[in-house]
Amino acid sequence: MRQSQLFIKTVKELPKDETSYNAQALIRAGFVDKVGAGIYSYLPLGKRVLDKICRVIREEINAIGGQEILMTALVPKENWETSGRWDSFDALFRLAGNDQREYALGATHEEIVTPLGKKFIFSYKDLPFGIYQIQTKFRNEKRAKAGLLRGREFLMKDLYSFHADQADLDNYYEAATKAYFKIFERLGLGEKTYLTYASGGSFSKYSHEFQTLATAGEDLIYICDKCHIAVNKEIIAEQNVCPLCGNKELREDKAIEVGNIFKLGTKFSEPFEVKYKDAAGKEQMVIMGCYGIGPSRVLGTIVELYHDDKGIVWPEEIAPFKIHLISLNENEAAEKIYENLVQSGTEVLYDDRDLSAGEKFADADLIGCPYRLVVSKKTLAAESVEIKNRSAEKGELVKIKELADKLK
Amino acid sequence: MRQSQLFIKTVKELPKDETSYNAQALIRAGFVDKVGAGIYSYLPLGKRVLDKICRVIREEINAIGGQEILMTALVPKENWETSGRWDSFDALFRLAGNDQREYALGATHEEIVTPLGKKFIFSYKDLPFGIYQIQTKFRNEKRAKAGLLRGREFLMKDLYSFHADQADLDNYYEAATKAYFKIFERLGLGEKTYLTYASGGSFSKYSHEFQTLATAGEDLIYICDKCHIAVNKEIIAEQNVCPLCGNKELREDKAIEVGNIFKLGTKFSEPFEVKYKDAAGKEQMVIMGCYGIGPSRVLGTIVELYHDDKGIVWPEEIAPFKIHLISLNENEAAEKIYENLVQSGTEVLYDDRDLSAGEKFADADLIGCPYRLVVSKKTLAAESVEIKNRSAEKGELVKIKELADKLK
Repeated sequence: MRQSQLFIKTVKELPKDETSYNAQALIRAGFVDKVGAGIYSYLPLGKRVLDKICRVIREEINAIGGQEILMTALVPKENWETSGRWDSFDALFRLAGNDQREYALGATHEEIVTPLGKKFIFSYKDLPFGIYQIQTKFRNEKRAKAGLLRGREFLMKDLYSFHADQADLDNYYEAATKAYFKIFERLGLGEKTYLTYASGGSFSKYSHEFQTLATAGEDLIYICDKCHIAVNKEIIAEQNVCPLCGNKELREDKAIEVGNIFKLGTKFSEPFEVKYKDAAGKEQMVIMGCYGIGPSRVLGTIVELYHDDKGIVWPEEIAPFKIHLISLNENEAAEKIYENLVQSGTEVLYDDRDLSAGEKFADADLIGCPYRLVVSKKTLAAESVEIKNRSAEKGELVKIKELADKLK
Repeated sequence: MRQSQLFIKTVKELPKDETSYNAQALIRAGFVDKVGAGIYSYLPLGKRVLDKICRVIREEINAIGGQEILMTALVPKENWETSGRWDSFDALFRLAGNDQREYALGATHEEIVTPLGKKFIFSYKDLPFGIYQIQTKFRNEKRAKAGLLRGREFLMKDLYSFHADQADLDNYYEAATKAYFKIFERLGLGEKTYLTYASGGSFSKYSHEFQTLATAGEDLIYICDKCHIAVNKEIIAEQNVCPLCGNKELREDKAIEVGNIFKLGTKFSEPFEVKYKDAAGKEQMVIMGCYGIGPSRVLGTIVELYHDDKGIVWPEEIAPFKIHLISLNENEAAEKIYENLVQSGTEVLYDDRDLSAGEKFADADLIGCPYRLVVSKKTLAAESVEIKNRSAEKGELVKIKELADKLK
């Protein structure tokens, strides 16, 4: 994409009330725009990154058999009353319809997915299955000051699974856990993300959070370095030891909850009366699990982890573009290189604007594409371009004819 | 995809309050689920069709330089007050935040896109540009009984363009009109869709609707067969002639509004004070246009047009799967054919369920994939499968080894 065509520019003046690093960096680089506290629009570069995060999630959830759907944001009051959450769920945005009905905006979707599953479950032969969506969620937060980490409006991938028995749920839960680690691995969060034991409700001893170490984290976790797992604050208050090995030397650190998985059991299938007939023809209650990842929160987390004092440093898999091609008054040669790269299927942001080298380099650092390519009189004299990795100090000259091979 | 793995089934019992054909057919075939009047979830097959419609729209809007973004569903009250629509826009869902602020859910996005554009427009060099999103919109309709044609919650592609002068807007408007016809052509609605003249507000004499002839249509349009355009009811009341040729013999027909385009002029740039400096350094008001298509309404329209008494008959470009492969007790042979088709990149729904031929055929007709392939003892005796076009009376035998070529 030609940068001269892009309607956004990097931004010098930040909103005064924006205190979080991730939102500041993303606003500054032109990836998002702040509409209100915890409410952000995604601009072209931000939308590209968000789409790539969603693609990774989608691929891994499809790989464990997840079937993608799209549920409604308007969730009728009756559904929340059936589950008993209309009054108890603080962060619901409640609203009145011109049809004399009341709704809440979906903050989570058990109230829609459970009656949906019910419509297609008759016998044990209809189980198990997993259905998910990637959708905008709404939470009426009192305070939202962590940028994309805690939004009033945010993107969520929520997967729900339906099972005939506990063993089947346990298997699925295990598969989902592995899929989650694959996702965080691909998104560059693998090393810093801990499976974290949390309260499991009435159905199972533990649920699990996926917590990524970050100084901007709102959560405290307690890490067992022997098992490479953690427990959350709630659990540490109950039992001051690692739930796997009994290790008492747990290390406290700040983290961001990037995902969570929960064995719901019959918490929702009971009130919605979701039953199946077993092989003997006897009615049994369906058992459920739920599995969430917030792509917009993940985006904010990646920015918190991958940056330097000049701007964002995107991991390659989710960078808005792999290459930031910069022409220093050599648009004719740069144009050819741009066309060749695009034809070879490489994603290139091409800075063809009439700006100084300093301004272009500063923008490239803010935006944070993995590779910066510079075409100048000097590089052309050596029939070359300069390639610099975003996090490297210095670049190197590469012959133009060897460029395609180099970038593979 | 193996049909045995799909969590949905075709549905026998329809919601009692569902009177529209499109929603009935889509619920029956398992494409959507009704949550409330005008509020539908998209199930796996429906999500696939919706994604394909969005892909077509995205490709054509990208081709005219549209830059994709994602704006917020929560639109602060102050934004609506600036435009003067907080009180006048009947169909807004209004809601109160725990942050002491009021919001309305986005029913349209001039109130977000105009201040967004303003942030990046300084001089005439920053113009023109077009930005769009594909997003869930909300309208607090008093009645919603036309299925996917009039939703309280629905998908919308909304494009907004920003210009330095009227001539530039006119050019863009022309390009958008052509892109719209390409979209409707690809979606199978080309022939029945009329460019329809509507009131243009204070800035231009006409705006334009794209109206698709359908008996389920809620609108009346008046067609000039000489010019192959139409005028809407509002215009016919003002001037009883074709605006292009003066023809008085206009033919009334029912239609569904599948898109609309509008020259906004300075209607929103005035209140939001969106100005640019021209080449002489003088401040000028930015001129805007807006261009909408509702992918979910388009989906409903396609179902209204493409069906027979057995179910939906999808146009190939947006069918959930190209092929519905049916095994009649020959899963071993069918499985091989399925694997080969999938490997060759063909989209196949494979009915590997343990059901009768009659049930499988009835489901295939309801679901409406373009080609039905049957593998049975009889076809295998001739080393063949039976191929039947969804709308054909009879199928024909094709040798298994010639299948890939046949389906290209």
